[in-house]
Amino acid sequence: MSERIYGEVPGVSEGMWFPQRGDLSRMGVHRPPMAGISGSAREPADSIVVSGGYEDDEDDGDVLVYTGQGGNDPLTKKQVCDQDLNRGNRGLVLSLMEGLPVRVVRGANLGSPFAPEAGYRYDGLFRVEAYWHEPGISGFRVWRFRLGKIKPIVARPRSISVAETSALYGAQAVGEPAARQSLLVSRIVRNSAVAITVKRLHRFACQVCGTCLETPAGPYAEAAHIRPLGTPHDGPDTAENVLCLCPNHHALFDLGGFTIEDDLRLTGTRARLRTVRAHPISPDHLRYHRAHYRHGSDDLRFVAAAAAE
Amino acid sequence: MSERIYGEVPGVSEGMWFPQRGDLSRMGVHRPPMAGISGSAREPADSIVVSGGYEDDEDDGDVLVYTGQGGNDPLTKKQVCDQDLNRGNRGLVLSLMEGLPVRVVRGANLGSPFAPEAGYRYDGLFRVEAYWHEPGISGFRVWRFRLGKIKPIVARPRSISVAETSALYGAQAVGEPAARQSLLVSRIVRNSAVAITVKRLHRFACQVCGTCLETPAGPYAEAAHIRPLGTPHDGPDTAENVLCLCPNHHALFDLGGFTIEDDLRLTGTRARLRTVRAHPISPDHLRYHRAHYRHGSDDLRFVAAAAAE
Repeated sequence: MSERIYGEVPGVSEGMWFPQRGDLSRMGVHRPPMAGISGSAREPADSIVVSGGYEDDEDDGDVLVYTGQGGNDPLTKKQVCDQDLNRGNRGLVLSLMEGLPVRVVRGANLGSPFAPEAGYRYDGLFRVEAYWHEPGISGFRVWRFRLGKIKPIVARPRSISVAETSALYGAQAVGEPAARQSLLVSRIVRNSAVAITVKRLHRFACQVCGTCLETPAGPYAEAAHIRPLGTPHDGPDTAENVLCLCPNHHALFDLGGFTIEDDLRLTGTRARLRTVRAHPISPDHLRYHRAHYRHGSDDLRFVAAAAAE
Repeated sequence: MSERIYGEVPGVSEGMWFPQRGDLSRMGVHRPPMAGISGSAREPADSIVVSGGYEDDEDDGDVLVYTGQGGNDPLTKKQVCDQDLNRGNRGLVLSLMEGLPVRVVRGANLGSPFAPEAGYRYDGLFRVEAYWHEPGISGFRVWRFRLGKIKPIVARPRSISVAETSALYGAQAVGEPAARQSLLVSRIVRNSAVAITVKRLHRFACQVCGTCLETPAGPYAEAAHIRPLGTPHDGPDTAENVLCLCPNHHALFDLGGFTIEDDLRLTGTRARLRTVRAHPISPDHLRYHRAHYRHGSDDLRFVAAAAAE
């Protein structure tokens, strides 16, 4: 996995055009010479090519519904048997679970208004948002992946028309039936290379309760930053500032539900954080978290609840 | 709570300017005549006014670090005692836990390049991303809230310069030390008015395992859509399509870790979904989820793991 690049490839900017598949491979945008998915059963996917090779693909510009690989006849492009959740298909699920970006390349395809007229175009980074299976148009099982475009963050507030915002966040009172527009983002989990390393060191077991969530595509855990990332805390994205937690303890940790002492005891209890030798935790960052997230005498109660699970 | 509007207020678009505080109240942008936070210990906040009233506020345009209310001398603007996690402060924590948007109004403030020169300007919807406490500049405890601007989704891919994208998602190989730029969004939880209703009906207890996460600001649970929202599933945001789950079972449900039968048994087990009379579940949506997320014989194994917790 050391050679796979997740994210932008140096020297290749969004919108760049390539005449041949071989050019994509040579530039490192999409390495496999034939396969549509660059990834494997053990390695998260780093890129895909959308080229109309599957009859079930859907392309809405910023949202792609991409069909997994296998089971189709390369000549007719029709499915001729069920797809397995393996190879690149599993790689895309790993990208979902690790939160890694996938480069999307569109190839010429007369059926899509988003495809280039000829050759291939690099269309930026997408996030795998969901995966599922269904009978494809030909009746055989296909694996499907929804990919959403990752938007750059603009540094300053820009002017937004009413039409734009209300299309997304329609005004509504709580209690009224909610339209699709009212959906809101609530909890964002950030991941990185460090996060993956730490989760692997703990074999995806929560450092508080030992839970390892088993899914059909493998174990799932989250990386929690002790001193938070971003303004104004600016905690580092280093292993000593990261814990491997189940989603429940991640939510509790971020909401001040428990804190951790220098000796790794959960504050107010005898329970101790589970550790592995290769992953030391920074007492400085634990101290920072306690100083900002500990709720005085309340702490005991919430820690007890956390440790009792 | 029936009268509080979360999100855009009809007739008020981003960038709109208001000469007086009273105009904000009359237009429904920010209702309280004096307080900076519109919200209470029992009601999520729907709006704030950033007006330089607290010496500890920080404003970076798209990211605000907002100081809670209380403990300051209105004349000198200096903190004179500790702030409590109550009233509007607690309201902002509830906005965080429910994922509700907060309208941000900026008032004239010579110290900020983002403030209007006079009067008040509505600057759009923000999301409360984190909360914590710390000693303020005057040494007394203040509660702090990081709010990030909610970006509209643009319908078509737009051209993005390399500089913009690499500032956010720097190219890197997994295994290398991760820079701040490599952070990626992994898991997004969507919330809405329906979600809040369902969670309250279950008193924030997970319908699979009964867990209710206790935090210093109250209970935390997540709303999981059975037939997923958005392309291509287009499940409805209605109570019969929503489950109240702990984050662990939410992650498992979305990743195909378990499915649910028409009779509400967890597939392959005797365990049954916990229900309340006022919240019926749609068998059609359960069937849709099973058809797309059930992993054949694998299901048994993951359900057993889910139910055993």
